[in-house]
Amino acid sequence: SPIPSHLVFSTSLRCRLPVLLFVFQGVLLLIFVLFTTYDGHTDAASQPSDVDPAGNQLYAFFSLFQDIQLMLLVGLGLLLAFMKGYGVSAVAYNFLLSNFCMQWALIVQGFIYHYHEGKIHLGLYNLLTAEFATVAVLISAGAILGRTTSEWLILSYFQAVDIGGSVTVHVFSCYFGLGASIALYRSGLQTGHPKETPSYISDLLSLVGAIFLWVFWPSFVSVLVHPGDGQHRAVLHTWVALSASVLTTFAISSLLEKKGKVSMGHLQNATLAGGVAIGTVADMAINPGGAFLLGILSSLACILGFKYMTPFLANKLRIQDQCGIHNLHGLPGIIGAVAGIATILPPLQNATVEPVFIGETLGRSASQQALFQAVGLGVSVIISLVGGYLTGLLLKLPFLAQPPDQFCFDDELYFQIQKPLETLSVDQVDEDLQMPLKNKVGLP
Amino acid sequence: SPIPSHLVFSTSLRCRLPVLLFVFQGVLLLIFVLFTTYDGHTDAASQPSDVDPAGNQLYAFFSLFQDIQLMLLVGLGLLLAFMKGYGVSAVAYNFLLSNFCMQWALIVQGFIYHYHEGKIHLGLYNLLTAEFATVAVLISAGAILGRTTSEWLILSYFQAVDIGGSVTVHVFSCYFGLGASIALYRSGLQTGHPKETPSYISDLLSLVGAIFLWVFWPSFVSVLVHPGDGQHRAVLHTWVALSASVLTTFAISSLLEKKGKVSMGHLQNATLAGGVAIGTVADMAINPGGAFLLGILSSLACILGFKYMTPFLANKLRIQDQCGIHNLHGLPGIIGAVAGIATILPPLQNATVEPVFIGETLGRSASQQALFQAVGLGVSVIISLVGGYLTGLLLKLPFLAQPPDQFCFDDELYFQIQKPLETLSVDQVDEDLQMPLKNKVGLP
Amino acid sequence: SPIPSHLVFSTSLRCRLPVLLFVFQGVLLLIFVLFTTYDGHTDAASQPSDVDPAGNQLYAFFSLFQDIQLMLLVGLGLLLAFMKGYGVSAVAYNFLLSNFCMQWALIVQGFIYHYHEGKIHLGLYNLLTAEFATVAVLISAGAILGRTTSEWLILSYFQAVDIGGSVTVHVFSCYFGLGASIALYRSGLQTGHPKETPSYISDLLSLVGAIFLWVFWPSFVSVLVHPGDGQHRAVLHTWVALSASVLTTFAISSLLEKKGKVSMGHLQNATLAGGVAIGTVADMAINPGGAFLLGILSSLACILGFKYMTPFLANKLRIQDQCGIHNLHGLPGIIGAVAGIATILPPLQNATVEPVFIGETLGRSASQQALFQAVGLGVSVIISLVGGYLTGLLLKLPFLAQPPDQFCFDDELYFQIQKPLETLSVDQVDEDLQMPLKNKVGLP
Repeated sequence: SPIPSHLVFSTSLRCRLPVLLFVFQGVLLLIFVLFTTYDGHTDAASQPSDVDPAGNQLYAFFSLFQDIQLMLLVGLGLLLAFMKGYGVSAVAYNFLLSNFCMQWALIVQGFIYHYHEGKIHLGLYNLLTAEFATVAVLISAGAILGRTTSEWLILSYFQAVDIGGSVTVHVFSCYFGLGASIALYRSGLQTGHPKETPSYISDLLSLVGAIFLWVFWPSFVSVLVHPGDGQHRAVLHTWVALSASVLTTFAISSLLEKKGKVSMGHLQNATLAGGVAIGTVADMAINPGGAFLLGILSSLACILGFKYMTPFLANKLRIQDQCGIHNLHGLPGIIGAVAGIATILPPLQNATVEPVFIGETLGRSASQQALFQAVGLGVSVIISLVGGYLTGLLLKLPFLAQPPDQFCFDDELYFQIQKPLETLSVDQVDEDLQMPLKNKVGLP
Repeated sequence: SPIPSHLVFSTSLRCRLPVLLFVFQGVLLLIFVLFTTYDGHTDAASQPSDVDPAGNQLYAFFSLFQDIQLMLLVGLGLLLAFMKGYGVSAVAYNFLLSNFCMQWALIVQGFIYHYHEGKIHLGLYNLLTAEFATVAVLISAGAILGRTTSEWLILSYFQAVDIGGSVTVHVFSCYFGLGASIALYRSGLQTGHPKETPSYISDLLSLVGAIFLWVFWPSFVSVLVHPGDGQHRAVLHTWVALSASVLTTFAISSLLEKKGKVSMGHLQNATLAGGVAIGTVADMAINPGGAFLLGILSSLACILGFKYMTPFLANKLRIQDQCGIHNLHGLPGIIGAVAGIATILPPLQNATVEPVFIGETLGRSASQQALFQAVGLGVSVIISLVGGYLTGLLLKLPFLAQPPDQFCFDDELYFQIQKPLETLSVDQVDEDLQMPLKNKVGLP
Repeated sequence: SPIPSHLVFSTSLRCRLPVLLFVFQGVLLLIFVLFTTYDGHTDAASQPSDVDPAGNQLYAFFSLFQDIQLMLLVGLGLLLAFMKGYGVSAVAYNFLLSNFCMQWALIVQGFIYHYHEGKIHLGLYNLLTAEFATVAVLISAGAILGRTTSEWLILSYFQAVDIGGSVTVHVFSCYFGLGASIALYRSGLQTGHPKETPSYISDLLSLVGAIFLWVFWPSFVSVLVHPGDGQHRAVLHTWVALSASVLTTFAISSLLEKKGKVSMGHLQNATLAGGVAIGTVADMAINPGGAFLLGILSSLACILGFKYMTPFLANKLRIQDQCGIHNLHGLPGIIGAVAGIATILPPLQNATVEPVFIGETLGRSASQQALFQAVGLGVSVIISLVGGYLTGLLLKLPFLAQPPDQFCFDDELYFQIQKPLETLSVDQVDEDLQMPLKNKVGLP
């Protein structure tokens, strides 16, 4: 075995993962059996006899819900599979973690928002909001509890607007992740890890994953917008911003990189930046030109971040940002938040099409609402950084079995995959190239 | 050529496949031209002048129909591509077989259920029911006629309930396939085949295929449920069961496998078990907790099946279950059928939300209906085993050109794919790694 | 570096691509900001107070729009990734080009069809029609301006019928591409290029791409049909034609190829031919049998084209048809156009179900309309060939940086991808197989 037994012991999942999952599933089973029931859309008894079945909330959300599932599980899974020898882990852990978080969010959000008469009332809408909480976790690979608190503060307490999640999803999860990364810093990995490199096929699959995300991003941004013209604008704006990001990415990357060759990392990330930045203002009347501008600015910021900020964070501030989340989620998220503030401020308002903001019904002026939006952004950054840092300290506790440096980014540690090559022979190369070879089947 | 000519002759598709397909397409063309016409939803002449076009049945089914097409052709195709050197065959034959079966089912179901005034009346609904028949065939790779008989017996004669197909799709196709496998037993393959192993990339693609199936499974289970709250419950229950299966799979697999490493086979199969088990009861008021429990139990049964039952079947009963269909479809399907019986039996009924079962309108008591459900399960197992065995004997007839043992699981037998390595040189390794090499393009 | 500096200079994208894209994005940004606004479905101010939000045009198109996005970006991207060492370029340039064209088409079509009161009025419908224009460009990799002209002539001037784009999309883009290919002929590539070969994994991914296209093709054909029974017929016909194409492809390919082995190229193309041919008549009452026949004929023509016509074009007429677009789009598109003429001609009309054609409202007889259809086909072929040839000449201008022959079909020219093997050692083989190797991580 290539892994010495004393190391295997300390990183083995045999004890910790099953115990954690068994306890979690046991507790969840109890809660599901004792404390859940159907909501008004899934309960047969609460349907009036004259209700039109086609009006069930299911039909407003189901196809968008599945678009987002496909984004998270196939798109994000493949996007994260960009390191050679870590593809299976990326896809599989993304799958496990998203289910873990959705179950948790279903229950936590259920007890907070949907608990009455002794029961959590469940329907597709709950799955959808749990999915949104999970997106944040998958981005930061952090913990869900912190985000729920922050979301409540921003959306309920400050009544800030953030329909597509620029601040509550992207900015939050980015700084949460960076906070944890500060706590988890490993000096041994500062100069880069030998396995932290892509291969041809992992780069190709990662690009396909990014395109899945790109295609379904308008569903993600628009799903929680009120039906009608608002949702229609959100789809239009998101597509325009994403499309501007694609062309800008090719332009900037080709300009900045050696010999004009486009960087795969830029392609896999900055083409999505417009989707992050459009989040806060997606359904406002910002004009298609505003969306175009956001797409250009956000992918520009993203590539400059990869080029200059990530090395700076790693070398000077000792923050390791493995997947460049600060470039894809942090910077474009902040751009989106600023766009939200700018859109609400009076001077930019268009006489014929006024942006509708939630603050109007609270008797706030536009300037006051803009202030609350800014406060919401600041709160998100602070809570996420602190929460992430504390979570990182927690993850360093000895019983949580961190792998030693040399086993980072290695599928073989946690999955039964094909053995690596020990010696090189025709047969073995053939095996790994997945091709039949005549002398394997015992022909004369 | 690596394959001696006398072997090539006996397995060549040149005569048999084209002849079979030409005859089939010729007969189908005649039937389509002479015996098909449009149904009430596709016929322009039968639309009242005041009909709302948005109410056309197309809009109730189309997106779900395409979800299921994607499941079958991309999801199942990739899932089956887990053997190195057999990926192209898996995806391509899955594509061919699903079209063959859907055409056949369209005509057979058409003559039985939709034939009047001398014509089969076709619309999207026919495609959808043909798709369901095809799922069973793709699982068992058996024949469609048997299933149609069984389906008619279970659903029409016994009036049993099985909305998501736990019994009529999964249990049936599983035992049909095992029946055929008994007849097709090859002692030469008992100890395993050298090509019957996955590679890194085939394992990764197979996992992505499983996730496609996982994402769209709620569409599959809910598409035939009546619109409204029932369909909404089916979606909710299916998601909850599937999600519990994911966490349970990681937990059990990590617990049972060496060094706590999760098995790829478990991951690709047991995460879907909850979707199989929920089939019968998907739209009943079983409470989300019931769905959670079914997800846990079915993936537990699936993994234990892989660990202990598949070797037992192979060694003691000489039944080769290549893809573990008994673990993913047989055991969870039976769990689903039992759940259906338990849900209908009076003691488990909830006073406020009664399960609605088809038997009520027949004047049956709940116990009587439960009995009919149990009989339906038994009938499905018996007909499928016998039908599968007879089909297997049929497939052994000499003119059907079975490949010799050593060519099993080999793409090269039926497809023009890249030549295997004969000798090892830098150039050839490069070719197979799909990378350009400077000395290939004749630079100075 | 494997590429000599004097060659690198002449093909570097550093100057040309960024400059082109910056200028394009700058101009587009100006146009978006100055000349675009919302249409009646996206503008909040133009919604009557009693409007039903669920009736917004968004809901009629959005899921079909995304199906087509997935077809173009994932399906077509992967389908084109069939050459080893050119997969990243295929997917990435497909992504860039489709966004470039959609932005351009959005503006050009906007000024022509949706410009009033000094503004282009935008909504999802504009994105959809821009998407259709883009399909043609992606097929021919030609220029959008020509097609817009041709489309206007065929659909507006001749009032010809072509709902699913057999003529305006497939025939046009095919001959446009061939016209360009004539102008761009390279004698050095006549005997084939060493890199112009697939590998095992690229063939598999390309097949998966074809299946994505196959699954969503009914969305593409039906999206612009009027809602109701017509759209329902379009979906039914498209599925029937595509399915007949699959079985016919396996039959013919196995019959014609050596040892009865199915050709991957046939499988990746001819299975889609029925979808091309059904375009013109998709919503007419041609009977499902007519669709079946079109599926069979078109895939037969496609395979015969690959087998006999492509070599003839290359050797005798010096037209290089790299991806076989004449076989998949040209021949089946012409079959579709002829089917349209035959369906409209009186002798073939069915007394009970008359095809509705746009000419009726113009006071044309059926024969007159059939004539206009034929003229439309001829116009499409002529304009596209000439337009393509002129575009090809344009592309030969020296400042456009064509790569030298030996760098054609090579990812490394434009993307930062993994280095090719220079020497062969265990470590490097391991790297390219994407597998961890124990001696890489410095174990004792």
